[in-house]
Amino acid sequence: MKFPNNILLKEVGPRDGLQNEKSFISTEDKVEWINRLSDTGLSYIEITSFVHPKWIPALADAVDVVKKIKRKPGVTYAALVPNEKGLQRALEADIDEVSVFMSASETHNQKNINKTIDETFKVLRPVVQEAKANGKTTRGYVSTVFGCPYEQDVSIEDVIKVSEHLFEMGIDELSLGDTIGVGNPAQVQRILDELLTRFPASQLAMHFHDTRGTALANILASLDMGITKFDAAVAGLGGCPYAPGASGNVATEDLLYMLDEMGIETGVNQDRLLAAAQWIEEKVGRTLPSRNLQVAKAGCQTRA
Amino acid sequence: MKFPNNILLKEVGPRDGLQNEKSFISTEDKVEWINRLSDTGLSYIEITSFVHPKWIPALADAVDVVKKIKRKPGVTYAALVPNEKGLQRALEADIDEVSVFMSASETHNQKNINKTIDETFKVLRPVVQEAKANGKTTRGYVSTVFGCPYEQDVSIEDVIKVSEHLFEMGIDELSLGDTIGVGNPAQVQRILDELLTRFPASQLAMHFHDTRGTALANILASLDMGITKFDAAVAGLGGCPYAPGASGNVATEDLLYMLDEMGIETGVNQDRLLAAAQWIEEKVGRTLPSRNLQVAKAGCQTRA
Repeated sequence: MKFPNNILLKEVGPRDGLQNEKSFISTEDKVEWINRLSDTGLSYIEITSFVHPKWIPALADAVDVVKKIKRKPGVTYAALVPNEKGLQRALEADIDEVSVFMSASETHNQKNINKTIDETFKVLRPVVQEAKANGKTTRGYVSTVFGCPYEQDVSIEDVIKVSEHLFEMGIDELSLGDTIGVGNPAQVQRILDELLTRFPASQLAMHFHDTRGTALANILASLDMGITKFDAAVAGLGGCPYAPGASGNVATEDLLYMLDEMGIETGVNQDRLLAAAQWIEEKVGRTLPSRNLQVAKAGCQTRA
Repeated sequence: MKFPNNILLKEVGPRDGLQNEKSFISTEDKVEWINRLSDTGLSYIEITSFVHPKWIPALADAVDVVKKIKRKPGVTYAALVPNEKGLQRALEADIDEVSVFMSASETHNQKNINKTIDETFKVLRPVVQEAKANGKTTRGYVSTVFGCPYEQDVSIEDVIKVSEHLFEMGIDELSLGDTIGVGNPAQVQRILDELLTRFPASQLAMHFHDTRGTALANILASLDMGITKFDAAVAGLGGCPYAPGASGNVATEDLLYMLDEMGIETGVNQDRLLAAAQWIEEKVGRTLPSRNLQVAKAGCQTRA
């Protein structure tokens, strides 16, 4: 195996972590938390979503959040944008980067977005183009790359089709999502083997959920394939809403622990990250699944 | 990366998982649980420890447990043995395999065993030899291979010294332990690069704790190095006693999920393993850290 010297961590906790969260986090708390995240050394934070508040009430305050945070120079603040209406709100709030999203599997796309994949292409194309015309960088998310709760296996052809359409629209980067956390390292190899013949590693990011504990192993397999950008959420927020103890996104501090120990640079400070994790855990009001957060709180045996 | 076709899972839950457990598990429950584990397809179960009950009261019923379980043909039942007195109890109970243990770091060895490393060699040599004379296979554990809570980093020379002594005594297999769960995949590569020039992969097993979430990534790195035997504990038992939410041994069902999905054969049935995990979780009386157990209980979205 070979590993890169540097990794770019993309924090998605304020968006992917909070979007299904039942505990209401106030706008003031979100702003305070994002400001704390900005001080950890993270250079990319996805802070909210401009999906209609009817669908994601937890992030109904998107415009306020973007306007109220303290923008740290060098940090890119991104947000999810589903359509042109959402883009208008995002541009009004002056977000740095616009992320569009869809699924590789038809059924998940329809259940999640209420449109077919082909209809979604038509909705997202003007969003990407208008965002770019307004000087924004753009990111595309593909969900269910590693498996779909409705269609089971997802073919690599479906992943390639959606990825090609998104790049052809003009996105700058593609994030490949293991939405329900079912992926494994051999699958990572197979999928990236195909995608890397079509798109450069520098334009791909991996987005793993740790639902079944495989996220760091999947990241390791991705590192070996040359991927250098990974999404993660502080404290492992974003779990299955039906499972209080279940993990969501890979916890940023768990990923950072592994990278730090491997000597891979990220520019992120673990102590500050853990403090931001503990801060949001208190606001959410339950034990969150991050391994390193629980160990740090308990003061377990360490090597240091 | 390359992966083997078959892996041997060595279940250590009844010993490593329970030895620091505060909830008292009765002899009858231990026996019932081990019988359930025997029916999962596991071919190796470390079921108790013959360390003096003063030190490990949770396993004071070692002889009874070994005598009362239903021995399934094809399953090897192993136990920890610290000295000749423990060996007499183990032989009386007619355990199949005798495991001896010590640390790679001097301070941890002294705190854990109350002897220097050199004194420990003298104690263990007759244990291994007498076990073999009685027709038992023998296993050696080296603790703190990836880091020590007292000495921080542990040199590869110290690991090699202890490993060579144990093999020279006559052990059949060596288990390399990340006792406090601080290891990382790059370190796995470095350590195995050295050890595999001295000992065959077929005689090495890896024993990872998932304290900081890196266990499966470390196992993936080990697979890539040709290791095919891994210790694990059902439900992720064996966590830091000060951290209720912290993980202990890598959960057998988390490891099995990854291996199953990668197409690597183990002969172990995941549904039965999860049932055995849930059974012991109820006895222990708190939520255990296994990702797959929590997800299975909650009925989260799956690909299947």
